[in-house]
Amino acid sequence: MKELLEKVLDDCRVHIRHGAVATYIPELAKADKNEFGIAVVSSESKLVCAGDFDKGFTMQSIIKSIILLMALIDNGTDPVRDLVGVEATGKPFDAFNYSDQALNCEHINPMINTGAIALCTLIKGRSYREKFERLLDLTRLISGNPDMQVDEQVYMSEKQTGNKNRALAYMLKAYGMISDDVEEVLDCYFRACSVRATTVDLARIAMAFANGGISVVDGKKLFDRNYARYVNAVMMTCGMYDGSGEFALSVGVPAKSGVGGGIMAVVPGRMGIGIYSPALDPKGNSIAGIKALEKLSENLELSIF
Amino acid sequence: MKELLEKVLDDCRVHIRHGAVATYIPELAKADKNEFGIAVVSSESKLVCAGDFDKGFTMQSIIKSIILLMALIDNGTDPVRDLVGVEATGKPFDAFNYSDQALNCEHINPMINTGAIALCTLIKGRSYREKFERLLDLTRLISGNPDMQVDEQVYMSEKQTGNKNRALAYMLKAYGMISDDVEEVLDCYFRACSVRATTVDLARIAMAFANGGISVVDGKKLFDRNYARYVNAVMMTCGMYDGSGEFALSVGVPAKSGVGGGIMAVVPGRMGIGIYSPALDPKGNSIAGIKALEKLSENLELSIF
Amino acid sequence: MKELLEKVLDDCRVHIRHGAVATYIPELAKADKNEFGIAVVSSESKLVCAGDFDKGFTMQSIIKSIILLMALIDNGTDPVRDLVGVEATGKPFDAFNYSDQALNCEHINPMINTGAIALCTLIKGRSYREKFERLLDLTRLISGNPDMQVDEQVYMSEKQTGNKNRALAYMLKAYGMISDDVEEVLDCYFRACSVRATTVDLARIAMAFANGGISVVDGKKLFDRNYARYVNAVMMTCGMYDGSGEFALSVGVPAKSGVGGGIMAVVPGRMGIGIYSPALDPKGNSIAGIKALEKLSENLELSIF
Amino acid sequence: MKELLEKVLDDCRVHIRHGAVATYIPELAKADKNEFGIAVVSSESKLVCAGDFDKGFTMQSIIKSIILLMALIDNGTDPVRDLVGVEATGKPFDAFNYSDQALNCEHINPMINTGAIALCTLIKGRSYREKFERLLDLTRLISGNPDMQVDEQVYMSEKQTGNKNRALAYMLKAYGMISDDVEEVLDCYFRACSVRATTVDLARIAMAFANGGISVVDGKKLFDRNYARYVNAVMMTCGMYDGSGEFALSVGVPAKSGVGGGIMAVVPGRMGIGIYSPALDPKGNSIAGIKALEKLSENLELSIF
Repeated sequence: MKELLEKVLDDCRVHIRHGAVATYIPELAKADKNEFGIAVVSSESKLVCAGDFDKGFTMQSIIKSIILLMALIDNGTDPVRDLVGVEATGKPFDAFNYSDQALNCEHINPMINTGAIALCTLIKGRSYREKFERLLDLTRLISGNPDMQVDEQVYMSEKQTGNKNRALAYMLKAYGMISDDVEEVLDCYFRACSVRATTVDLARIAMAFANGGISVVDGKKLFDRNYARYVNAVMMTCGMYDGSGEFALSVGVPAKSGVGGGIMAVVPGRMGIGIYSPALDPKGNSIAGIKALEKLSENLELSIF
Repeated sequence: MKELLEKVLDDCRVHIRHGAVATYIPELAKADKNEFGIAVVSSESKLVCAGDFDKGFTMQSIIKSIILLMALIDNGTDPVRDLVGVEATGKPFDAFNYSDQALNCEHINPMINTGAIALCTLIKGRSYREKFERLLDLTRLISGNPDMQVDEQVYMSEKQTGNKNRALAYMLKAYGMISDDVEEVLDCYFRACSVRATTVDLARIAMAFANGGISVVDGKKLFDRNYARYVNAVMMTCGMYDGSGEFALSVGVPAKSGVGGGIMAVVPGRMGIGIYSPALDPKGNSIAGIKALEKLSENLELSIF
Repeated sequence: MKELLEKVLDDCRVHIRHGAVATYIPELAKADKNEFGIAVVSSESKLVCAGDFDKGFTMQSIIKSIILLMALIDNGTDPVRDLVGVEATGKPFDAFNYSDQALNCEHINPMINTGAIALCTLIKGRSYREKFERLLDLTRLISGNPDMQVDEQVYMSEKQTGNKNRALAYMLKAYGMISDDVEEVLDCYFRACSVRATTVDLARIAMAFANGGISVVDGKKLFDRNYARYVNAVMMTCGMYDGSGEFALSVGVPAKSGVGGGIMAVVPGRMGIGIYSPALDPKGNSIAGIKALEKLSENLELSIF
Repeated sequence: MKELLEKVLDDCRVHIRHGAVATYIPELAKADKNEFGIAVVSSESKLVCAGDFDKGFTMQSIIKSIILLMALIDNGTDPVRDLVGVEATGKPFDAFNYSDQALNCEHINPMINTGAIALCTLIKGRSYREKFERLLDLTRLISGNPDMQVDEQVYMSEKQTGNKNRALAYMLKAYGMISDDVEEVLDCYFRACSVRATTVDLARIAMAFANGGISVVDGKKLFDRNYARYVNAVMMTCGMYDGSGEFALSVGVPAKSGVGGGIMAVVPGRMGIGIYSPALDPKGNSIAGIKALEKLSENLELSIF
């Protein structure tokens, strides 16, 4: 397996040059384009890694899967579904999807910014600081890594430059979809996007989703099986933005990407995969990361279809 | 199993009254709203049925899965993918998805009308009549039912009233995505939509997709495993129109619906399901049919997530 | 003339009940639906009034014409045109007009919220408070009424509830079209919308635009003739929101409406008209106000076409 | 006046090279880019011309003004207004303007293709050939030129390649806005677009609109004054496509352009102008033609604002 992972990285490294690191958040522009790492956790809890598997990067949109999970744990499925829909929008991750001057739950989903920002308001907590701490605790619990932290510089950079997210959040407020103070809600969201992880963290989190919420380390129940299915289903149809259909074809498993360069892929019942390569394609997905997952899917017959 | 299917039909019959039969094609408006049937084929080729499992209805959009398969068989994946994209559009099945005066492959997919019409041009044949005959032959082969036929009255009705499809087809022609005579292309498409099937036919076709293109009757290869995956992946993300995300959550398997009231559901490696109930929800999917699939998925743990 | 105005009010009063006062700003919802007044200033500076001509109301979007004028006076035409386009958008006044993830000057115009907010940044002044004071001074100068003031309660109400305008302003900032602090820009905009006027004030302002920027009171030049034409032309094509085409047909002169119930109509070379009736049609224009202008246009042959 | 016209042509000839002749209809691509002519008719019926004033070109979209007039003459204003709206769409001339799967009169206007095609159905006549003949007769009557004819080659070229117009027409039919045979309706529309004119013809037609439907030659009433206003108002807000706002600013009179390179400009009460230069800007308007009208408007104070 280790040889396979190394070969996959070697074969796919060539695609890095066709991508570009995210620049819309200044701090992300500092990433080293050539970093490339992968980690795989199996259902027997075996971990195999290759390349820059232990390099840290911010989770960015990958945290959307955990925000959705936290909202489900805190509220059950109905309030979550009532606030945020589940259809793909066919548009980029930061788009307004907007019909006839009305914005409602059917126009958003948990994997795009608007949906994830709205879901922050459903996390339980007396303050948005507390909501975020609970989200971070859940992330640490599932990854089994109590040292996961916010990257303060990325967080400050997001907060300073996140005007499009401010626009989206005020639109949610204008349409009565959120009622709390926009800056507080966004502070929670920006911190969440700035949580630092490695491919190993992503692989372990993915394995929890792949295993119906049961830890493969000790067999303990981390979260409800139905919530795992909810998150996996949403990742399948919308997790790779407007590249989700293509990814379903070429890789065939639920996955979530982030503009930090990470991808978390869930092979139901079999495997959790974390991958990192910060050069992105025009849709905001790691370009070499997707190629590596295609190779791996082909070699290991990972597609669920 | 038979008892389960009968119970599912009984439990879900109540939803029929919340739907309405399709009226935009006059001939479809004649359907009996109370018909409700189901057929399940297992990977051991065992067939179990209940209710109006043997009532005939036109496949309508379900044939889109076979059109896609035929285009793949005749051309391989690249020409198919180059002509018709695979992203969900977030819009109804007969919508224009249209950006800045340009229409290209990224705006359409095989499960919406525009995409399916375009794919008809990729089917091999000296005439559109021959293209259609080859498509019908493939459908008969996969279903194992050599008696499948066009419903001539529905076909005539579609042809007479299909002005929105004419508009979509001329738009494809205006943007150079198809070059043949529009009426000929549409004739093939209208005939294809009017092919009559029973739930048993749908279940057998679904089982072929569930089994990687291998017949569960005699183990013969009907089509390439990769084509099965292609069709399944596209059905997963776009098969239930702008209800695909919801369906991924509540049922969790690739499926394709038609306004004739049928749904074909593919449980990879395990099962093919055909269901029929012509009362539709506002998105054009069989309302009791979806409820029945939800029950079945819950009972048999069908979700692939 | 006075009899004509009174007859017009009498004839059109019946339409009031088909409209509704604006409710999206709580303070506006308190308006008395039955108030109905008109004032006309001729090119000889003669003033004729009828009905509730001296009732005060907030200018709301009517101030957009003065914001545009102030931006033109302070910068000349090119910087104004470079920041904010002049095409009708075919959409409501608070809509995003938005194409392919890009927002630029071609998507906005001075008569919709986004355009007017952007133009506030072009008004000269060391602070947004000073920018606003200069705008108010210009309004007082043109109306010849030094007592025009901000309605503090409406201003506070707009500021508290203006989340859609916040969304629009942050979108402008996200796309680099404004660079100043959003809350400061909006404070100027909210104050401007809350300036209180009577129909007499509107009629006098309109007369200045009708007379190429020359005061009909004392013949002094208030502003450049080209700026009058700029503002008139933009009011003609976009001043009545997505009802501008209809208004060009039925009345045939440049005009600007506000959700406070006012309409300012400019009859080039001949007349300035102010009208007030707070019951609005679905597009946000005074319903009886438009009817009254239609009658007046018919009687006095006001159409410029 | 003649010297002014010649100077204007000389000054504006430099802009020709920034434009391009229309290529989407093959026959139009053959136009000589350097042709440039102008004709002006005054309210005293005086004709002044310069440059290639007598070169023939097809009217293309300019005929939309006459189609609208004919529909008004044959039906009065209400049926015309009920079928085709009057708001600018903010979109190109051949765009779908389309909201939430509904297409209705509010989405179209007489100056864009969809609206003009719909209005052809309102022209009286037992056949579409007769409808067209009546339209041509009206055009000849207003222009005072009984020799105006269809350019058969352009007509054939339009008919063969007009697939986008076919798409638009079938969409109108699908939404019940037209009920006649699409090819027959389009045949009338394609013939109408292919009527050949010179700048003199356009100037005379414009003068009739400028003079409230009264011939300046013999004082006879050609059509109702209200219809002149209707057409002028619609040309003002939508006549130059999505460049109408800009044109209102820079020229300030109602006008209609065509992709054949012609522009017809109406100076109410004063003047009719015809101009021809086939190099177009990206919006489909004659690039040097607009510049010439700007110069002329500045020199003669033509703006109605």
